[in-house]
Amino acid sequence: MITSQQYRERLKRLKSNVFIDGELVDRGDSRMQGEINTLAITYDMAEDPSLEGITTATSHLTGEKINRFCHIHQNSEDMLARQKMTRHYCTHTWGCILRCMGCDALNALSVVTHEADQKYGTEYNARFLKYLKWFQENDLVAAAAQTDVKGDRSKRPHQQADPDLYLHVVSRGEDGIVVRGAKCSVTMVSHADEILVMPTRAFVEGEEDYAVSFALPADHEGVSLITRAASPRARQQLKAPIAELGSTDSVVVFDDVFVPWDRVFLCGEKELGGRLAVLFALYHRHSYTGCKPAVSDIIMGATALVAEYNGVERADHIRHKLADMIGVAELVYSTGIAGAVMGQKSSSGTYIPDVVYVNVGRRHAGENVYHESDILADISGGMSATLPPEGDFFNEKTGPYLEKYMMRNPNIPAEYQHRCFRFISDIICSSFGAVWQIAGIHGGGSPIMETIAILGNYDLEAKKDVARYLAGIPKKKS
Amino acid sequence: MITSQQYRERLKRLKSNVFIDGELVDRGDSRMQGEINTLAITYDMAEDPSLEGITTATSHLTGEKINRFCHIHQNSEDMLARQKMTRHYCTHTWGCILRCMGCDALNALSVVTHEADQKYGTEYNARFLKYLKWFQENDLVAAAAQTDVKGDRSKRPHQQADPDLYLHVVSRGEDGIVVRGAKCSVTMVSHADEILVMPTRAFVEGEEDYAVSFALPADHEGVSLITRAASPRARQQLKAPIAELGSTDSVVVFDDVFVPWDRVFLCGEKELGGRLAVLFALYHRHSYTGCKPAVSDIIMGATALVAEYNGVERADHIRHKLADMIGVAELVYSTGIAGAVMGQKSSSGTYIPDVVYVNVGRRHAGENVYHESDILADISGGMSATLPPEGDFFNEKTGPYLEKYMMRNPNIPAEYQHRCFRFISDIICSSFGAVWQIAGIHGGGSPIMETIAILGNYDLEAKKDVARYLAGIPKKKS
Amino acid sequence: MITSQQYRERLKRLKSNVFIDGELVDRGDSRMQGEINTLAITYDMAEDPSLEGITTATSHLTGEKINRFCHIHQNSEDMLARQKMTRHYCTHTWGCILRCMGCDALNALSVVTHEADQKYGTEYNARFLKYLKWFQENDLVAAAAQTDVKGDRSKRPHQQADPDLYLHVVSRGEDGIVVRGAKCSVTMVSHADEILVMPTRAFVEGEEDYAVSFALPADHEGVSLITRAASPRARQQLKAPIAELGSTDSVVVFDDVFVPWDRVFLCGEKELGGRLAVLFALYHRHSYTGCKPAVSDIIMGATALVAEYNGVERADHIRHKLADMIGVAELVYSTGIAGAVMGQKSSSGTYIPDVVYVNVGRRHAGENVYHESDILADISGGMSATLPPEGDFFNEKTGPYLEKYMMRNPNIPAEYQHRCFRFISDIICSSFGAVWQIAGIHGGGSPIMETIAILGNYDLEAKKDVARYLAGIPKKKS
Amino acid sequence: MITSQQYRERLKRLKSNVFIDGELVDRGDSRMQGEINTLAITYDMAEDPSLEGITTATSHLTGEKINRFCHIHQNSEDMLARQKMTRHYCTHTWGCILRCMGCDALNALSVVTHEADQKYGTEYNARFLKYLKWFQENDLVAAAAQTDVKGDRSKRPHQQADPDLYLHVVSRGEDGIVVRGAKCSVTMVSHADEILVMPTRAFVEGEEDYAVSFALPADHEGVSLITRAASPRARQQLKAPIAELGSTDSVVVFDDVFVPWDRVFLCGEKELGGRLAVLFALYHRHSYTGCKPAVSDIIMGATALVAEYNGVERADHIRHKLADMIGVAELVYSTGIAGAVMGQKSSSGTYIPDVVYVNVGRRHAGENVYHESDILADISGGMSATLPPEGDFFNEKTGPYLEKYMMRNPNIPAEYQHRCFRFISDIICSSFGAVWQIAGIHGGGSPIMETIAILGNYDLEAKKDVARYLAGIPKKKS
Repeated sequence: MITSQQYRERLKRLKSNVFIDGELVDRGDSRMQGEINTLAITYDMAEDPSLEGITTATSHLTGEKINRFCHIHQNSEDMLARQKMTRHYCTHTWGCILRCMGCDALNALSVVTHEADQKYGTEYNARFLKYLKWFQENDLVAAAAQTDVKGDRSKRPHQQADPDLYLHVVSRGEDGIVVRGAKCSVTMVSHADEILVMPTRAFVEGEEDYAVSFALPADHEGVSLITRAASPRARQQLKAPIAELGSTDSVVVFDDVFVPWDRVFLCGEKELGGRLAVLFALYHRHSYTGCKPAVSDIIMGATALVAEYNGVERADHIRHKLADMIGVAELVYSTGIAGAVMGQKSSSGTYIPDVVYVNVGRRHAGENVYHESDILADISGGMSATLPPEGDFFNEKTGPYLEKYMMRNPNIPAEYQHRCFRFISDIICSSFGAVWQIAGIHGGGSPIMETIAILGNYDLEAKKDVARYLAGIPKKKS
Repeated sequence: MITSQQYRERLKRLKSNVFIDGELVDRGDSRMQGEINTLAITYDMAEDPSLEGITTATSHLTGEKINRFCHIHQNSEDMLARQKMTRHYCTHTWGCILRCMGCDALNALSVVTHEADQKYGTEYNARFLKYLKWFQENDLVAAAAQTDVKGDRSKRPHQQADPDLYLHVVSRGEDGIVVRGAKCSVTMVSHADEILVMPTRAFVEGEEDYAVSFALPADHEGVSLITRAASPRARQQLKAPIAELGSTDSVVVFDDVFVPWDRVFLCGEKELGGRLAVLFALYHRHSYTGCKPAVSDIIMGATALVAEYNGVERADHIRHKLADMIGVAELVYSTGIAGAVMGQKSSSGTYIPDVVYVNVGRRHAGENVYHESDILADISGGMSATLPPEGDFFNEKTGPYLEKYMMRNPNIPAEYQHRCFRFISDIICSSFGAVWQIAGIHGGGSPIMETIAILGNYDLEAKKDVARYLAGIPKKKS
Repeated sequence: MITSQQYRERLKRLKSNVFIDGELVDRGDSRMQGEINTLAITYDMAEDPSLEGITTATSHLTGEKINRFCHIHQNSEDMLARQKMTRHYCTHTWGCILRCMGCDALNALSVVTHEADQKYGTEYNARFLKYLKWFQENDLVAAAAQTDVKGDRSKRPHQQADPDLYLHVVSRGEDGIVVRGAKCSVTMVSHADEILVMPTRAFVEGEEDYAVSFALPADHEGVSLITRAASPRARQQLKAPIAELGSTDSVVVFDDVFVPWDRVFLCGEKELGGRLAVLFALYHRHSYTGCKPAVSDIIMGATALVAEYNGVERADHIRHKLADMIGVAELVYSTGIAGAVMGQKSSSGTYIPDVVYVNVGRRHAGENVYHESDILADISGGMSATLPPEGDFFNEKTGPYLEKYMMRNPNIPAEYQHRCFRFISDIICSSFGAVWQIAGIHGGGSPIMETIAILGNYDLEAKKDVARYLAGIPKKKS
Repeated sequence: MITSQQYRERLKRLKSNVFIDGELVDRGDSRMQGEINTLAITYDMAEDPSLEGITTATSHLTGEKINRFCHIHQNSEDMLARQKMTRHYCTHTWGCILRCMGCDALNALSVVTHEADQKYGTEYNARFLKYLKWFQENDLVAAAAQTDVKGDRSKRPHQQADPDLYLHVVSRGEDGIVVRGAKCSVTMVSHADEILVMPTRAFVEGEEDYAVSFALPADHEGVSLITRAASPRARQQLKAPIAELGSTDSVVVFDDVFVPWDRVFLCGEKELGGRLAVLFALYHRHSYTGCKPAVSDIIMGATALVAEYNGVERADHIRHKLADMIGVAELVYSTGIAGAVMGQKSSSGTYIPDVVYVNVGRRHAGENVYHESDILADISGGMSATLPPEGDFFNEKTGPYLEKYMMRNPNIPAEYQHRCFRFISDIICSSFGAVWQIAGIHGGGSPIMETIAILGNYDLEAKKDVARYLAGIPKKKS
């Protein structure tokens, strides 16, 4: 395991391929500093002895202690520990720790490379395990690039006017393959060491070139990261942990990029493209059963705090809304526990969480994101939107005015009151906050995707048989 | 373990103390036959080898195989098995198997009698275990009588105009105690062997006489059961399992009833009255994480079936509503799993489920009862309310009319179509169905009670600390 | 105008063609008495001078004072008066006054017969106005029979295996036509004087025979009414207005029935079949903006009353739920006002309410039916489901027990408490109550039908132009 | 009436008293330019002949044509025209036209000054009408400053540690009064000509000094505006109307400010302080029945547009969500119509909208704000949060990449696609958009305030009588 300082140093050695607002920028660009700070926490907390076994795990490859973000689930307990870790991290980082996707992609690959080998006699799994060992030893950060730009949504990949609208193999050579396309909405890739490319959907005959998965260094030749950085409003004097955080999302363009064979983990096995897409999503949705409750923790914490500051904490209707928020958090967390406990071992030995519980949970989370913001906005009042800028609190004339008129409960210093509103303004009245609302819906797959996953995996015919039995109608002959 | 036939015989030996609509009636009264049929299933399925270990358990007292309804949870697996059993039973019995309450009361007593002994040096636990052994050996059915009539809800027990509005000890003697009061909304007591009386709330100084718990035979001297029986509409020719079921609720009046000491399990320890009330509710709410998903199973099964019959099964908006129903069922079931897995061993050795997960689950179930009926009513159409009575389908003139005009999908016989609507009419358009809607809200405690339980057990201050940390506000000094 | 006594007498003169549960019964059968009582109110209140101009109107044909249920809307004020009248009646009759459908059908026919004449040179309108004059003079009650049984819902009328699954013309003769088919879910037809048959949908080429509308006496040769009667549970001693009410729904079979030409109002004009279907639905949905708020009035009244009796009337969470109920009632009522005020005069002179407001209102009502029951069930507690039968309150032994233990607020007599719960039990825990829940969804068209009507009539392209303007995208060329 | 150019010129003559982020700035500061642009529209559209009678009115004082924003409602038609005007303006200005508050305050003052004179023999009304005439002649813009900072919310004004936490009269002199305090969340005051100060609540004995209302020029001596400006992200090349808009909110500090008597409209009549507060809120909530449907128009337009661009416009679940949005818009709009039509004439001749309909509508709007954003976020997908900054679309290397990969429907130019997402990003993923979400809850009073207003004005006892009647319980003796 490395330190956060080593991670920061390593980032500096990456070649420039990040663009922001039309400029080629350094990975250390101030607009993106918050993301580096966030990722650094995953190194710092891995050194915290009180979190041993939660933030760390024992590699099944080497027996060494590794960062849990580099670990492959060996049993239900691993999944429970991962869920617990995620919630812990995310209460310190405004709801996203950024490093999950890579871990989820590794787990999915550990399963599907093995299944491919069993089915086709390929050697993906050995190749993947070698890559994994190196990944674990170097304590790497990986971004998962899955979402193709997809063009016309009413057409399949091979029907698009431009075949590049889904990433695909352009040519195969002795040393490797060449790929072209773009992945969008790729979070954190501008500070990842590695990019793990996943297919975005299932494929049919004639779409073999789209069934491809591979790993590349984030600054690989031909790869461009077109990046949108988001952070809370910068603070001048009123420093706070929230203000040090941040994240990025990128369109990742692969402009005829060469990938050596030892980094290719699927290439043309179209039956397994969809399997890999779905399995990555499933692991990632299980991650959401950890992070989304943390988002709820933060929002309900802010709500309870502002209710205390406003002196309405004991009012029934406030308390019932807090109970609603607890409900959302713990229903979702429960599905992660159930998903872990009812998980199954795959042929590779990797554990897979239960698909129904996890999707039901992720869906419930996604459907309540805006509802939670609504409650916080409702209870905190209009001040979260109309709070004067920080400078006014420190101007000679207006500072004393605001100090005087900001007071509510005389036992709570004006500064705390100010900090509380500025914090709430960051989470529900800023571009940064809105990014995470939208991510709360779409990250890991939108509610409609979970609806599809649920309906595809649930035995509704068995439920009809329950009805048929009670109604005295014979079962269908199968 | 006994057979259902033995149970039916045993019932006949009970003395008459059941009143229906102003008459003293026999326990075998035809209006209550459905309840006996329902309870009989708990004996029949305990003999089914494929359910071994689910419907049965091994007594920790005797090592004998017993009906799981007589068992005390020894570990998380017991709670998981109980939850699974409950869902299984309840899909066969329109959502309630009726025998849970007794089991939940026994579990709560196994914990609290032990805690009382530890705190006060009493001997309740040994007395209880002796009772339990006898209970297990005879494979008894117990009703739990908890809900006092409560009089003026803005006043405490000892402040009521009439002190009997909460059941209480009238006198204590050498051989036992005398109690007076009434418990209402007591389900299934008219076919129970035993009544387990639980306190309904916490008590304060001066309310010692209300902190009482005991067991009595259901036909004990001085006990009257004023009963409301509910069943689906009787069928003449179109027999179906749903039509054989039923249930009862009673006001149980204790008119200066004598209880011998060996059946008294709490008497005056006011600090533990509330503990017993809450713990019984907790076990019972965990039962609901099994039965309420079964209710959802039935309703979603009926919805999917009628959607198939109406030819709209593939429509998006129908499927999304089915996914909503799956969501309700599996979110609630997840909380039961999480509650079991995260449960704790009490000082008595009995396992207790986690209070937050279970209450969050029960609350979510209660809040969705009417929503599920709404979906079924919506998708099944008006026919569930306007279906002609059964006789019209067999009358010489109208029968052929209805046969002709009932047809929808030509591949589905008119009789199935008819059975399907009659079944749906039983569940959403009958007095019997409505009883279970209301029970779905209030049984085991209404959503407001779970809200109180959640808020009372959840560490909201820790969540405020999450907000304080991110906002840069120091923790409160404790 | 006639008296209710005259109406009752007139009913007795109708020939027997009503079947209940396999028997041919008299219209005065005790199971259907509640419906007659309900309809009688429309005659009694029309004599109430304080309701003059609300329950009555001035015929535009004769200038005579007539029952408003026989009136054709001449302006927005008529529609406002009708809405007000409906709400008033329905608070006295558990949410449905039963006589609206006929009035709505008459209004729709007054428009469409005129449009047919304009388009095809037919003489329907004069024929209809003659019928209407006779109808007004005799102060008749008409049922509207619209909903065909519809067979396989994925097929059109002319594609059904059995062509009779939609009612259609079998033959045309000099004196009239012969029709065959069945209409289902026809409310109140068993106590109507007249049946007004309406088409159920739009038609295409080849479906001319389905585009038919006509009037028949309710006991006409060849017409059979297969009827389901619903009433609150009968009372022995605790008489109350709710217990005197009732309603029926029938499958109306037309077995080669002859209709003379002077009672035929549409026959083969397929373009206007859909128009008539939709317009009848629109008028009927406007009626719902009056009756559904009355249902809300009753349910919120019951909720507020039981909250008072339980002593929780001032609790915040109770009051907020009452505000929710007020919200549902008055949002829906507002749409009726807006629909009336923004209504338009048709070519016939009859006023038509605005289609968007009315459908938005009816949809909102339909989506909240179960929600309102949920609130009442929640606040009234379990007793609405477990209340002992009436007889137990008057039995020598159990009567005093219940009298004693029913007490809550000492200032409220046990009888009122009892009456309150029995009333609530009638509305949310009875077959009768459930019929009206389901009617609350489907009567006048289910929410999905209103969704279709809204989307079909709303100018979404104009809203896209709003977005395009702000975004700087040019309008589409049309 | 003046032109927008004249308005812009007039603004320049105001003295500097606006602070932003610690600096004293000019009213023309670039950060606030969007607000001026928005207000200018109210002058431009008043000159549009096609909007004559909508954006203009005839003064009841002078008979001259005036801007409707300066008009006092003389009848229901005025209120209907005002509602229509507001919706029209607000579809052009991202949901707020900014100039309503002043108009609403003028209407409230026209009523309450008259009532004060009737009750106390004061001369406020004549004074107010003189002010109004001058206001109309100069076509002024007024901000209404109502919300006091309020300090400890569990205490009344006179109980606060600092008496200034509610604005109050410090001294009364021959020429006028001196006031001290601060009003917060005052929208648009930095570009108003006049500030109309309203009380924020009802008062009790001893709080006479808080019952004060007056008008001041926005740059009056002693008045400081501490301002937060909000705008969509600035555009470099992709100009669009949305990007030219903006708004401000200010804390307005009154530091011992002198107000001459001819600008004082209430001073010490504590019984009327609450009346004025409530009446202003009522007028303002009626304004919301115009602007909130416009917000819905914009959001549903954006949703329908992006659904078209994504090729999913015909999907059932998309269309049903659009119908939900239409439902919100038109339910709220209906309450405004009903409120206008059912409005009442006050003693002053000014019309007042119905309090129940208007509050029910405003509450429904407030409860659905986040729900509407949720639908747009759901249907537009993650791109609204992860769209690269504008510069990347015009960079030599990344521009062509984005042009290529942004394509969806080949018939829709990449620029439109880009504009569509950038627009959506402005409305749901920006600080500016979030300001209006929060304003959508709290502007004009939060849902809890409307709940209180509804419960305070609704005759629930009459609804209980409805229940009592049906249940056979006599009415309460009053």
